[in-house]
Amino acid sequence: MHTLETIHQQISLAIEKLDIPGKPANLYEPVSYTLSLGGKRLRPALVMTACDMFGGSLDEAVHPAVGIELFHNFTLLHDDIMDQAPLRRGKETVYKKWNSNIAILSGDTMFAMANREILKTSLSAVREIGDLFNLTAIQVCEGQQYDMDFESRDDVTLPEYLEMIRLKTAVLLACSLKTGAIIAGASPGDCQLIYDAGISLGMAFQLKDDFLDTYGDEKVFGKTPGGDILEGKKTFLFLKLIEKAGTEAKTFNRLYSPASALAAAEKIRFFTIKFGEWGISEDVEREIDSFYKSALLSIDALSVDSVRKSVLLELIRKLSLRQK
Amino acid sequence: MHTLETIHQQISLAIEKLDIPGKPANLYEPVSYTLSLGGKRLRPALVMTACDMFGGSLDEAVHPAVGIELFHNFTLLHDDIMDQAPLRRGKETVYKKWNSNIAILSGDTMFAMANREILKTSLSAVREIGDLFNLTAIQVCEGQQYDMDFESRDDVTLPEYLEMIRLKTAVLLACSLKTGAIIAGASPGDCQLIYDAGISLGMAFQLKDDFLDTYGDEKVFGKTPGGDILEGKKTFLFLKLIEKAGTEAKTFNRLYSPASALAAAEKIRFFTIKFGEWGISEDVEREIDSFYKSALLSIDALSVDSVRKSVLLELIRKLSLRQK
Repeated sequence: MHTLETIHQQISLAIEKLDIPGKPANLYEPVSYTLSLGGKRLRPALVMTACDMFGGSLDEAVHPAVGIELFHNFTLLHDDIMDQAPLRRGKETVYKKWNSNIAILSGDTMFAMANREILKTSLSAVREIGDLFNLTAIQVCEGQQYDMDFESRDDVTLPEYLEMIRLKTAVLLACSLKTGAIIAGASPGDCQLIYDAGISLGMAFQLKDDFLDTYGDEKVFGKTPGGDILEGKKTFLFLKLIEKAGTEAKTFNRLYSPASALAAAEKIRFFTIKFGEWGISEDVEREIDSFYKSALLSIDALSVDSVRKSVLLELIRKLSLRQK
Repeated sequence: MHTLETIHQQISLAIEKLDIPGKPANLYEPVSYTLSLGGKRLRPALVMTACDMFGGSLDEAVHPAVGIELFHNFTLLHDDIMDQAPLRRGKETVYKKWNSNIAILSGDTMFAMANREILKTSLSAVREIGDLFNLTAIQVCEGQQYDMDFESRDDVTLPEYLEMIRLKTAVLLACSLKTGAIIAGASPGDCQLIYDAGISLGMAFQLKDDFLDTYGDEKVFGKTPGGDILEGKKTFLFLKLIEKAGTEAKTFNRLYSPASALAAAEKIRFFTIKFGEWGISEDVEREIDSFYKSALLSIDALSVDSVRKSVLLELIRKLSLRQK
């Protein structure tokens, strides 16, 4: 068994060791730049932790773990073009610092690099994890497409929203855990359970993001609260408000849209107050809590000694407490 | 042994059978649309022909063959955004018909679909062809980046151009042939020879494209001749002219640039005449011929009965005679 610290060290080392050529500079500098911005490295940590829990070798897991991190960074690169996002992790996005074409192409390169890393594992696992990985990639694209489609719709429902975040966020966390389990040779039943745990974890993770966007402490979260409200983004908070608001829903829809009559600060204040009045922050916290409980139930059912589950449980506990 | 016709039928059938979901429509309609535009299906035919030549099973080759075709179509989708191309195969490009964001995302999806197809082959081949495929994908991105970099440079040399088309075009043809060979269990020596043949074939293929863009018969080639000249694209023809033109090179560079003082029709006429005066069409035909000869030498050296080479040789003969 390895500690989370050791696991993170191995991941960092493997990312540093990636062979990123110098030329053409316009292709590879954005790749190095993106990887240098860091991030939580949550997905590779999930691969490694799951593999270790099932008694697998971390050496067999580290390349696929890096592959999933490369993939995650590739999706951010392309998402930032689509969302015209100027900043990512406090730095200029690739599309802003270079241009859209370079961001498209260096993203494509990262996806190919990701697939090469995914294949660097034991032959017995390679086809299954390769297929899971690319199926997951397709689902992530579906999620992003739904997210974009939602922007121009005013009839998005909560179940649709939950399905969108399942695809856009949760499946990759589930894929990470299952990848580690497959590499370790876990049973199909355990692979399914850990996948289910990953889905629940991913749902909780994304809902926490929604929550922090309105209720996060600016100094800790690193962003001015209310960004989603300002953009008129259809989050869990807003859709729950609409679901509960009855006759007022129509007014809220109009005031929340990008064409809102409210000025920026006023719009944020108005909806933060409304969320409070309608008990939305409690609703989202309850939902997050329920997803964490589901994840823990799935992990509880794994046919693994409980002592071996400690690192994964520690990781989940940290996630549930995160304020950024 | 199978005929080219049978091989093409199997490829068409496998592409028709691809499972393309209905939703989200904005993600998958562009995928179906792109595949419906057809094309030569050259790359999957190379996979299948090579596999058959080495005595492999076409059933093991057809999914990777479709994977390479999916990949090729994905690169066209993203290239069309970067080049702002309005038409592809006589129809609107995805980026024009839908928008850039949709073209980015449906392209990403096709790349993931491609990787899933690549992995559907015998376990003994899967890691080698998966790695070759994704390494090739990276090289194709490098080629596209060099191509974009060349647009803003006025000192591109012929060797640099040849290296660019090796990456952008030739490596994928080479990868196709080698993929078929690996699946059939060909020896490492034969795999290398068929890869080399593919590089030569790809170089000849791209140079023929350059040639046809100026000298093609509009009715057959389907495009108005002179598109590359109009755009000021640094093709083999132009770079050869610059190499030979001595003191006149500076003038040619100025007149060929997008900021040219010449009007469209005049520019095309001027450079078509100059190519004639400096013997450039003979130069490019000689170069194409030389690459075809190299390809045939590599194929000649394969440790395969000559009767088994007939279908590949037929395919190459057709390519060398193509006028579109």
